[in-house]
Amino acid sequence: MYIAMNRFQVIRGKEDEFETIWKSRDKHLTEVSGFKEFHLLKGPQEENYTLYASHTVWSTYDSFEAWTKSDAFRKAHSNAGKYKSVYLGHPNFEGFETVEGA
Amino acid sequence: MYIAMNRFQVIRGKEDEFETIWKSRDKHLTEVSGFKEFHLLKGPQEENYTLYASHTVWSTYDSFEAWTKSDAFRKAHSNAGKYKSVYLGHPNFEGFETVEGA
Repeated sequence: MYIAMNRFQVIRGKEDEFETIWKSRDKHLTEVSGFKEFHLLKGPQEENYTLYASHTVWSTYDSFEAWTKSDAFRKAHSNAGKYKSVYLGHPNFEGFETVEGA
Repeated sequence: MYIAMNRFQVIRGKEDEFETIWKSRDKHLTEVSGFKEFHLLKGPQEENYTLYASHTVWSTYDSFEAWTKSDAFRKAHSNAGKYKSVYLGHPNFEGFETVEGA
């Protein structure tokens, strides 16, 4: 199992706008080989931002990597640059491999 | 759904020791109400450390919170202080609520 998380620092007061963007976004994921599940997560509030993370579970790292090179990936990210005004800084990607647990 | 993650900066070269600690630890989780799944995750390598995260999925925040006040929690953490030598700094807890996704 491989978990791809992208961490977003969303400016305080822009949380609803950020969530609406994600809810209305066509992620082109459900038919991708190796895709298991997607969640958008809301984390702790800090002084200047609220932490959010996209959280996508893949069967293997290789299936994730293949997706990043696909048309589905390109389509899902084609509008990503439009919404910079809700973020503090760049998203921060972290990928995780399962070490223990089913 | 609620995801509790504890982030560990594991000193480079101590990864095997850290993983062994977790694999041999009795987590007392399987019978806890609201517990869904546990994984230990290995994340990116940085210059001085490798990021790991414990990743526990709960049905609700309330079930997680009840666990933190339980005997099962106390037992699972009774040896946590013994292993400080594998970490750079303190673990960093982040809890996430599901905003979108099944």
